[in-house]
Amino acid sequence: MELWQLSAAQASDLMAEGRLTSEAYTRALLARIEARNPVTQAWVHVDPALALSQARERDREPRRSRLHGIPVGIKDVIATRLMPTQYNSPIYVGHQTAEDANSVAVLLAAGAVLLGKTETLEFACGGRVPPTRNPHDTARTPGGSSSGSGAAVADGTAPITLGTQTGGSTIRPASFCGVYGMKPTFGRISFEGAKHYSVHLDTIGFYGRSAEDLWMVAQAFRMTSGDKPAVPAIEGLRLGLCETPSWGTASDDAKAALLEAARRLAAAGATVTPLQLPEPFNRLTEQQDVIMNEGGRGAFIPEYMNHPDLLHDDFKAKVENRRGFTAAQMRDVLDQVALRRIDFERAMGELDAVLTLSAPGEAPMGIQSQGEASFNRMFTALHVPCISVPGMKGASGLPIGIQLIQRRYEDEKLLAVAAAVARVIDTR
Amino acid sequence: MELWQLSAAQASDLMAEGRLTSEAYTRALLARIEARNPVTQAWVHVDPALALSQARERDREPRRSRLHGIPVGIKDVIATRLMPTQYNSPIYVGHQTAEDANSVAVLLAAGAVLLGKTETLEFACGGRVPPTRNPHDTARTPGGSSSGSGAAVADGTAPITLGTQTGGSTIRPASFCGVYGMKPTFGRISFEGAKHYSVHLDTIGFYGRSAEDLWMVAQAFRMTSGDKPAVPAIEGLRLGLCETPSWGTASDDAKAALLEAARRLAAAGATVTPLQLPEPFNRLTEQQDVIMNEGGRGAFIPEYMNHPDLLHDDFKAKVENRRGFTAAQMRDVLDQVALRRIDFERAMGELDAVLTLSAPGEAPMGIQSQGEASFNRMFTALHVPCISVPGMKGASGLPIGIQLIQRRYEDEKLLAVAAAVARVIDTR
Repeated sequence: MELWQLSAAQASDLMAEGRLTSEAYTRALLARIEARNPVTQAWVHVDPALALSQARERDREPRRSRLHGIPVGIKDVIATRLMPTQYNSPIYVGHQTAEDANSVAVLLAAGAVLLGKTETLEFACGGRVPPTRNPHDTARTPGGSSSGSGAAVADGTAPITLGTQTGGSTIRPASFCGVYGMKPTFGRISFEGAKHYSVHLDTIGFYGRSAEDLWMVAQAFRMTSGDKPAVPAIEGLRLGLCETPSWGTASDDAKAALLEAARRLAAAGATVTPLQLPEPFNRLTEQQDVIMNEGGRGAFIPEYMNHPDLLHDDFKAKVENRRGFTAAQMRDVLDQVALRRIDFERAMGELDAVLTLSAPGEAPMGIQSQGEASFNRMFTALHVPCISVPGMKGASGLPIGIQLIQRRYEDEKLLAVAAAVARVIDTR
Repeated sequence: MELWQLSAAQASDLMAEGRLTSEAYTRALLARIEARNPVTQAWVHVDPALALSQARERDREPRRSRLHGIPVGIKDVIATRLMPTQYNSPIYVGHQTAEDANSVAVLLAAGAVLLGKTETLEFACGGRVPPTRNPHDTARTPGGSSSGSGAAVADGTAPITLGTQTGGSTIRPASFCGVYGMKPTFGRISFEGAKHYSVHLDTIGFYGRSAEDLWMVAQAFRMTSGDKPAVPAIEGLRLGLCETPSWGTASDDAKAALLEAARRLAAAGATVTPLQLPEPFNRLTEQQDVIMNEGGRGAFIPEYMNHPDLLHDDFKAKVENRRGFTAAQMRDVLDQVALRRIDFERAMGELDAVLTLSAPGEAPMGIQSQGEASFNRMFTALHVPCISVPGMKGASGLPIGIQLIQRRYEDEKLLAVAAAVARVIDTR
């Protein structure tokens, strides 16, 4: 096993035992980036000298947390004090903030090493697509908008990365890239210092190579207790198999992968029951779309006024409200979504998790389209924590993520359940 | 009339007519700051050379908007590229960001002149109180947390300032200081670049010397159409007089002021009917309190980890969740508040505005307490736009603000109604 293949949790354990230095691990990842980035283009900015200097400092210090000495990549819509933050926007070429985003500051305070910035869809929203390729098939998209963060973890160039999700931008790349991804409960991680789009939806997400990697990140944000999850037995776990109103957008192989995952979990002792969402959920994705896009009316006014020549028309359309969102419509969609939050969690009852697809299929061909967020938008709107667990495969042998969902603020429980589920379906 | 006494709208009209330069107006305000700031202490940072240089630039240019050449003050929890942003926190003494907050960038792009930064409660949240005094009685608080922004407009040192509101931080100072203040619909102005506290509540607010001043700011954020409000006739205006569940916290003179305002409006031809909120609204303020405080769990982790010695215990308590907020409790309060949004706007029916107090009374004595937000927290939670109109007075002859409220996203309508109401009750 090469060093770059270690999960964050494995590397952390080796470091705690004195069998691995942060410097050696960082060097291995930097070498991997050098080899792979010309192909995958997950990284927009890497600073080897800075990363190694941070790693050596961590090696000299007492360990601060399980993230101590672990290199991380940051989606380039999240501010970093020591590296440019460019949003994949021509307006912000070379743009340097004076401080770290809240989410970055927390990881670095926990001892993480800043490896670099990862490619993103412009402003994590629209406009320019990143050049990033799916490591499993470079003819395909890694998904978006956290394209580089998903691809980097899949490609072995970072064990942990930060992303964001306003529609499906964390969970979908996790699915396409075959990595672990988490969108926590809305609001649980501060979005301060990340580029805002919709205040009702914007969420910091993160990627890892195992469920325990995700736990380590959640722990840094004080969302969990203890160093490792108390993984429940799979026997007796109550899982709700949910096709969602987007079932029709899923490919046959994706559907088969979800059913096969459910079959395996049931065979391992879980109780898998169907969860049917009532009719009003059919409009949830469209309601999310209105809320999300209306957010752009305020989010991009500075760029609209100061740099109209460099601003993609996608964003101008939002500022100008070309879709004509009305006050009554906004109240209606916000209230309908709020009611669905109540309905969804009532429907969940005593389930330990809802089980569904993370994306409608394997990563599509090409990089112009980043694939559909049809299995994500509704859950972003519901503010519930979501984890994508890899391990299943589609017709082309490419990853199909299985999405696990809990009620709001049950992030710790979801992480533990995901670790149990992973033991059954992620047997790579 | 002295130049510093002009409202933003009056100054703007004079500039448009070529009868006033931005430079002359800015000089008058700078002189007023020099004279008054030792007493009122509304400003934490003023840069006369920068302001004058911006003013002269604006004088040389074609007018960009009605805000062109108008000096503004910015609450010191909102980032400014050309001035420190210090949050009234010892951690951030001299702290300089590399960019303007969205709200600042919009005002400056519209042609406003950056006059300085105004005093604030630490992180607009707790901890250290600002030294600011109420211009009407320097033995009293101007209210908080936007203390300096409210006091500056009242004291004639700026015609327009930005504040924030997470509990009652914009409307309460407007009431205590006798100025116009607006908390727009939640999410309508981007909070990017302001210090985050609760993602469910944080709102950019603003102050002016007239309803038209507020309109000019709202126009810059594309919340209104046209240069001036289409002020409706007071005859036939349907107003709902709402005591709110906080009526018991109001002083007798405040209650009398609200009833007198209602009487005057009715005498002028408005239809004023009582609006009774049903029993579940009695818990709304406590629910807002839980949502707001829980936001501090994530908001202050970086300061908690990196500067524990300089962080006030108020914030440590939040990060450590000393109040022990639970997942079930968070779901409950968020859902209850969401249901009240629906109930409130249904109860409003065809009213042109709800009429209530902006604060429970005159500004209290002393500056350690910034007064109660009992008439604000529920409306912040409801995400509805609120405007405080001055003109009424309490037992000590100090200002009592009258609060007007509309349904979410009806900011433009609320601004027009406030202009009509102001003609009746603000006859100073």
